[in-house]
Amino acid sequence: MRHLILHINCPDQRGIIAQFTAILYDHGANVLNLEQHVEPGEKLFFMRIHIDLSSMEISENALGEILMALVKKTNSSIQFYYPENLLKMAIFVTKESAPLYDLLIKHQSGELPCEIPCIISNHEHLKEIAGQFNIPFFHLPVSPETKVEQEKEIRALMEKEKIDLLVLARYMQILSSEFVADYQGRIINIHHGFLPAFKGNHPYSKAWERGVKMIGATAHYVTAELDEGPIIEQDVVSVNHQHSVQEMVQAGRDIERRVLTSAVKAHLEHRIILDGRRTIIFHS
Amino acid sequence: MRHLILHINCPDQRGIIAQFTAILYDHGANVLNLEQHVEPGEKLFFMRIHIDLSSMEISENALGEILMALVKKTNSSIQFYYPENLLKMAIFVTKESAPLYDLLIKHQSGELPCEIPCIISNHEHLKEIAGQFNIPFFHLPVSPETKVEQEKEIRALMEKEKIDLLVLARYMQILSSEFVADYQGRIINIHHGFLPAFKGNHPYSKAWERGVKMIGATAHYVTAELDEGPIIEQDVVSVNHQHSVQEMVQAGRDIERRVLTSAVKAHLEHRIILDGRRTIIFHS
Amino acid sequence: MRHLILHINCPDQRGIIAQFTAILYDHGANVLNLEQHVEPGEKLFFMRIHIDLSSMEISENALGEILMALVKKTNSSIQFYYPENLLKMAIFVTKESAPLYDLLIKHQSGELPCEIPCIISNHEHLKEIAGQFNIPFFHLPVSPETKVEQEKEIRALMEKEKIDLLVLARYMQILSSEFVADYQGRIINIHHGFLPAFKGNHPYSKAWERGVKMIGATAHYVTAELDEGPIIEQDVVSVNHQHSVQEMVQAGRDIERRVLTSAVKAHLEHRIILDGRRTIIFHS
Amino acid sequence: MRHLILHINCPDQRGIIAQFTAILYDHGANVLNLEQHVEPGEKLFFMRIHIDLSSMEISENALGEILMALVKKTNSSIQFYYPENLLKMAIFVTKESAPLYDLLIKHQSGELPCEIPCIISNHEHLKEIAGQFNIPFFHLPVSPETKVEQEKEIRALMEKEKIDLLVLARYMQILSSEFVADYQGRIINIHHGFLPAFKGNHPYSKAWERGVKMIGATAHYVTAELDEGPIIEQDVVSVNHQHSVQEMVQAGRDIERRVLTSAVKAHLEHRIILDGRRTIIFHS
Repeated sequence: MRHLILHINCPDQRGIIAQFTAILYDHGANVLNLEQHVEPGEKLFFMRIHIDLSSMEISENALGEILMALVKKTNSSIQFYYPENLLKMAIFVTKESAPLYDLLIKHQSGELPCEIPCIISNHEHLKEIAGQFNIPFFHLPVSPETKVEQEKEIRALMEKEKIDLLVLARYMQILSSEFVADYQGRIINIHHGFLPAFKGNHPYSKAWERGVKMIGATAHYVTAELDEGPIIEQDVVSVNHQHSVQEMVQAGRDIERRVLTSAVKAHLEHRIILDGRRTIIFHS
Repeated sequence: MRHLILHINCPDQRGIIAQFTAILYDHGANVLNLEQHVEPGEKLFFMRIHIDLSSMEISENALGEILMALVKKTNSSIQFYYPENLLKMAIFVTKESAPLYDLLIKHQSGELPCEIPCIISNHEHLKEIAGQFNIPFFHLPVSPETKVEQEKEIRALMEKEKIDLLVLARYMQILSSEFVADYQGRIINIHHGFLPAFKGNHPYSKAWERGVKMIGATAHYVTAELDEGPIIEQDVVSVNHQHSVQEMVQAGRDIERRVLTSAVKAHLEHRIILDGRRTIIFHS
Repeated sequence: MRHLILHINCPDQRGIIAQFTAILYDHGANVLNLEQHVEPGEKLFFMRIHIDLSSMEISENALGEILMALVKKTNSSIQFYYPENLLKMAIFVTKESAPLYDLLIKHQSGELPCEIPCIISNHEHLKEIAGQFNIPFFHLPVSPETKVEQEKEIRALMEKEKIDLLVLARYMQILSSEFVADYQGRIINIHHGFLPAFKGNHPYSKAWERGVKMIGATAHYVTAELDEGPIIEQDVVSVNHQHSVQEMVQAGRDIERRVLTSAVKAHLEHRIILDGRRTIIFHS
Repeated sequence: MRHLILHINCPDQRGIIAQFTAILYDHGANVLNLEQHVEPGEKLFFMRIHIDLSSMEISENALGEILMALVKKTNSSIQFYYPENLLKMAIFVTKESAPLYDLLIKHQSGELPCEIPCIISNHEHLKEIAGQFNIPFFHLPVSPETKVEQEKEIRALMEKEKIDLLVLARYMQILSSEFVADYQGRIINIHHGFLPAFKGNHPYSKAWERGVKMIGATAHYVTAELDEGPIIEQDVVSVNHQHSVQEMVQAGRDIERRVLTSAVKAHLEHRIILDGRRTIIFHS
């Protein structure tokens, strides 16, 4: 099989599904799965089509041209993703090991379709874990004075390795707004709090002080504004008066890793379409 | 707006989406929502299309004929549902009030699109609740000797009121297999256990004995075999060693009513397609 | 049986359990259940003892005196609750019916040990529901001009009916800080958001805008600062891009009523001890 | 600090808490935490006391003698656990890596208070993971012919390493009933189904066939009867018609590891008391 995934979005209008699927049907491309969503307030249409190209009767270039003509006519935008071209993912960490382990274990077991050319950290604590999984580890320490220089090194590494997705797996540094803008929609962060509550540092301490009965974690795309980017996935776990801050940290670890891995998986499988500050997450 | 919901299922084949949506597009019927599912093992295709007919350029009869031609060609089966024709739902109860209350409250608040012409019970305990919501209450007591006769009365009532859906909201009687066969896919039961565990009577006592750490409820279509019909919805709640059987009953009540109401809502909104013993539940 | 529930809190010190239980044992009072909690940071000790007095060999007055001597010695504070003296609960509502129904249904089925002498509302929408359950309904409309006067009427009613607990079941008015201070620890509110996120008005709209993947509800004691009081219970439900604000409202209703009823039940069963801004919720 | 954890169970009777805590108080042993449970049907009393011995005024031997006198008088049984004596845990695996990884990661991060002297497997697939964490790996292959011999080797290894707890982390072999009897209450298994549903092999396939809407995992003590031992922990995750068996396997992995690790942690922290076929799980 040769697979293709299309993301199409456009102003809502009649016949979008009919016209796109007609092109595919007419030329022997088989729709394996189609999901769509209309945002009624904004009158926007979003669609993801998963296609098997193996019996197609025309070239991929020709299909592309025909689709682009319809895209133009319908005022759509379109993205083409070929699942056999695995995305390249860089993982950024500091000292917390749980989310890193989970990404590497799920990658090893084949659940995360990607290549991992590098793990980057401002500390050396997790170097051994990278070694356990035979992933190159780059120790790029950072201080207020060297921040600009370190980010230049990160950028060089991202470019050299042709990184498609940056995953901040409890990376305790803030990237510059220029950097974030250049990788818009391609940096996923895990925040160890239930956003929009408990933004910024020490969310578990704040949660303890406030006496909440559930703590959570939030995976989101990174934007220039701290912890304000589009949310991809969230989950919570119950806590009670017996939980110290440290026990909240432990209870939260399972949620953090699960939420982050699930969000990364959705991105790698091209199941996410951005709608401004909101995300549309298709199921398959 | 005039709405139409189509359920289509057929052997999996190319171009199903394209061909059906082309008919709609060509004649001015607007697809509001389309969801499909392929069962790869059985090579079966299932689709639900929600359509706005208000700008259609041909008659509904003509559309029906054109669709039927394609149905024949593709070896499909099709169902037509017009949401403005509310389904007629009968509720069967015995003594437990929680699921009955929930159905009536959600109906009152507009969340359950149906008419409720009657509540039937083999006891009089819940007559007052029916009165609170101004629904006719039919007390049809039953004993081993009168079982056949009582079911005849039920059947007469269902026919007189043109009932589309029978909801067993903790109705503690077993319907005959003939009756069940005649209403196949149109009787929903709530079982107060996490099927397939704890079938039959006294599931909470069995759960306590077994020392489970979660109890659940299951809404399913009724078939001739007890608690073996296609599952629509399930949910659970945590329990611990401190829960007595009676406290499990209380904890389970919230789950039972939520699961039942949610399953009934999915049926009333024509979001369920049966695939043998499994259910496909579309989202909207 | 004649039951007594004690709440004891004091600076953490050795022998608290031993000394209090010794008094009970020495005089024939039987401990049915004992739960305690130490807050290590604050070095505070909290304990709830559920006692059967039916075989006690001294009078209740004598027991009280002996306990008070130990309370003084250990620098504790103590509360005495006799479960057979049902608390008197007033329910405040506006237009939303779901939490009101749930309180009344659970009260009817015996799950909420209390009396409900009155339902108060600034609108007449829910008067019929009060009638369904035979609870007196007081329509006390309010405008900016009549706010002081209306609160005076509320206060008079609370005093006349000797109300112990005020439950704001989606009551859309803010009580004055004087009123709140006078009923400290005795007013429970349900907020239809996952505090501390989405405080104040229109939490579901805010949640939709922010694109969260879970919505929640929070039951808390009311303090002078809006939505900042001690949290008793929280829960969440998953939502996705398909949920409109209105569908979030529907999904949230089940959470709101469950969270509120559960919090009220904990209060009525004397299972809550306040520790500043945090709550200790014992299990039985 | 020197800590001691006591488990006491006995026929329910007055003054158990008072008498045991009096002994501790009288001799300078400080109760850090006390939890108790009465099983009303069986009239049994269970208690866990966590004690700080560091200011005790008598010897540990003397304390033991005094406690044993009360144990005899009250017809109790008692266990003494010193948390500083870490339990020795053996992990049994076959090919599934997720639960093994989770145990090793949580052990590494200090969340599982134990020593892990060995990992045993009937296959070599997971040898490398053992190597990653520097734990000795024993490959003990087994066939119907060598089953008796292999179990003898396992037994020898358990004795040599003085193993306290055997964890079957998806070990796909059945231990003999003699072996199980000798390690009663000391073997924990993870079953990848929501017991008592889907006992035995291939629970995910069975769950798919039955069309359940949730799949689960169950950690339990192993007894001679397959998947019938006392349940320690359970959890579930929602699935729908889109999940293939393979996707259920993936979704279940997170639940399996979380449930197993949590059950193992409860055992290692001496928070579990067996009550026949039921478990009492204390919180701290």
